Amino acid sequence: MTEPSEHHFSTADIDAMAQRYRANFINSLSGFKSANVVGTRSDKAENLAIISSVFHVGANPPLLGMLIRPHTVVRDTLENILSAKHYTINHVGTDWIDKAHQTSARFEPDVSEFSECGLTPWYSPECVAPYVLESRLQIGLTYSEHFTLENDTVLVIGNIQEVIVKGDAMHNDGYVDIEALGSACISGLDSYHQTQRLAQFEYAKPDQPVKKKSPQGTER
Amino acid sequence: MTEPSEHHFSTADIDAMAQRYRANFINSLSGFKSANVVGTRSDKAENLAIISSVFHVGANPPLLGMLIRPHTVVRDTLENILSAKHYTINHVGTDWIDKAHQTSARFEPDVSEFSECGLTPWYSPECVAPYVLESRLQIGLTYSEHFTLENDTVLVIGNIQEVIVKGDAMHNDGYVDIEALGSACISGLDSYHQTQRLAQFEYAKPDQPVKKKSPQGTER
Repeated sequence: MTEPSEHHFSTADIDAMAQRYRANFINSLSGFKSANVVGTRSDKAENLAIISSVFHVGANPPLLGMLIRPHTVVRDTLENILSAKHYTINHVGTDWIDKAHQTSARFEPDVSEFSECGLTPWYSPECVAPYVLESRLQIGLTYSEHFTLENDTVLVIGNIQEVIVKGDAMHNDGYVDIEALGSACISGLDSYHQTQRLAQFEYAKPDQPVKKKSPQGTER
Repeated sequence: MTEPSEHHFSTADIDAMAQRYRANFINSLSGFKSANVVGTRSDKAENLAIISSVFHVGANPPLLGMLIRPHTVVRDTLENILSAKHYTINHVGTDWIDKAHQTSARFEPDVSEFSECGLTPWYSPECVAPYVLESRLQIGLTYSEHFTLENDTVLVIGNIQEVIVKGDAMHNDGYVDIEALGSACISGLDSYHQTQRLAQFEYAKPDQPVKKKSPQGTER
């Protein structure tokens, strides 16, 4: 092993970065991101947008948050959520990352990203927004609240109303094996990854060493 | 290939779940999560806590957000951030996920998770909060603002002041290859994963098919 090189970036270094370089750099720093496409509809069209900022907010009530940048293609998505109050979050599968990425192109407002990107809208009786048929984990939500952050990014929080899990991914303790489902993850703005489990650990206790969980059976 | 089984969960199904089952279930739904440990200090002790909710907020100004649940072990972290105004975010490496997980145990307030979990505090001249020496991507931040969400979870937003990247992970376009750095990701409450890159794509355009990026050299 050679001594690894070390890069140090100060505030001045970051300020001096060209816009695109800086976007790539800062977007890499948070770590791996979830890969989801968000389905909405307006009066005129179905809308689909890849979003790498979906995060867990709480289990009871069941809440998910996501960040939406204004002035981007996802702007339609925000408007649709605020008017229709329903939206879907669909895990991106490792076998269709190219189609999911293509939803980030700036299509005309009345064009459906579903047909343009080769993905199939599907409706549940419970939700007026379209799901992505190809997704193996689909979540239907209703709008709950939103906040505008200091950089005009909007944080949207939704209530989980419905969850569909395709495949034998339910563990006995409630954990959904999203790796077995083939869910992808993202780093930076455009890098897509599959995962490989290293370990699952028991609840940590101060007076005990870390313990691996014994394998959980899947529910049938 | 056999027909995959499909599980459907309604609001009533979710409401009926036992607390622990429900926590495991809902925590699986957002997709893969970033794996970071947050370093802070109080007058009395250095503090370290694993957090799976760090997310990108913006590149200019450079901002990261994270969610902190009240009444959990991470509560000390929140108090330290609000009083000292400085904190560090350190990528968890795939080779020390067990130590990172152990920081989630409920240690006494004056005990340092660094020594209890076998991790090493390290200080930069730029930041009063401790970094984790073992981490290969370290970020120093100052507190910027916070919001309390409907379930009393607190969203903390910080300004990036300093970034240290160890190893040849800087691409020519600013992307940091966090897979090459060995950054881990998380699913659910306790499952840790390594990643394998599938593809990096060019900026998507409506009239062009998805294009893979040509490989980017690393900066030396």
